[in-house]
Amino acid sequence: MRVLGVDPGTLATGWGVISVAGRALTHVEHGVIRTQASDPLWVRLQVIHRALVEVIERLRPDALALEQCFVSKNIQSALKLGHTRGAVMIAASAGQVAIAEYTASQVKATVGGGGRASKQQMQEMVRVHLRLGQLAPEDASDALAAAICHAQAAAFQRALAGAR
Amino acid sequence: MRVLGVDPGTLATGWGVISVAGRALTHVEHGVIRTQASDPLWVRLQVIHRALVEVIERLRPDALALEQCFVSKNIQSALKLGHTRGAVMIAASAGQVAIAEYTASQVKATVGGGGRASKQQMQEMVRVHLRLGQLAPEDASDALAAAICHAQAAAFQRALAGAR
Repeated sequence: MRVLGVDPGTLATGWGVISVAGRALTHVEHGVIRTQASDPLWVRLQVIHRALVEVIERLRPDALALEQCFVSKNIQSALKLGHTRGAVMIAASAGQVAIAEYTASQVKATVGGGGRASKQQMQEMVRVHLRLGQLAPEDASDALAAAICHAQAAAFQRALAGAR
Repeated sequence: MRVLGVDPGTLATGWGVISVAGRALTHVEHGVIRTQASDPLWVRLQVIHRALVEVIERLRPDALALEQCFVSKNIQSALKLGHTRGAVMIAASAGQVAIAEYTASQVKATVGGGGRASKQQMQEMVRVHLRLGQLAPEDASDALAAAICHAQAAAFQRALAGAR
């Protein structure tokens, strides 16, 4: 099973693909899609959508893992983030990729480091999980964290199903 | 020129296409895309996106007119509306449709009825503008109003350009 994690943002959308065999996780690829703040929102959505469609066609993930929104700022930023998440979801559903959402605490709990883990600690945990030579950029690392969370959740579901 | 107006909503997304020749507006078609509240958000976005892609392929609008968000409620509803607007924008940009946004007051000012016009008065103004036999359903009527606003704005731009 291949899992695509995405950390949506209007300026920078991180993504990362991992491959899952049993409990073994392998890093496939990651990246950050950047857009121009001076472009209209719809152009930026198009850039993000196209880049993800390309990733999905090329790397063929079975599932998309997204962190559920933790919106701390204001209504305008929530609205903008919503646009980006919508464009991400459309790219996934067009590619027949199942979509799963996890809360930030679920991601932290499975990737490790505990609820109080700093961003740097999370990046380091992702690096260790996937045996990366160096830290992935923050947005891509958050995307990989969501993918790891989905892989663990799927393994847990299978274990539960097997135990019945 | 053909203009597609869209009034995005997660439960009901209204749309309407008008044809513009000089200052003459002709109604082409309108409709409301409804989704199941019990479905996950990404399924509902997919329904809205697919329906609009079909409308765009069939009716070939040159422009999409959207009302800019007036968000009065809360962060969660802004986030949800954002998802829907993102899916709408992706459908338009994939079909090479230019996107224009207007504020609610711009729409009211061009469609008529003034800033204090009630929803029913707006529906009646849309009916009169397009010589409809009966009122369009509210969501579709709001979409048609955005399309009319774009048509008037485009005529105004042409007049300005001609006067230079």
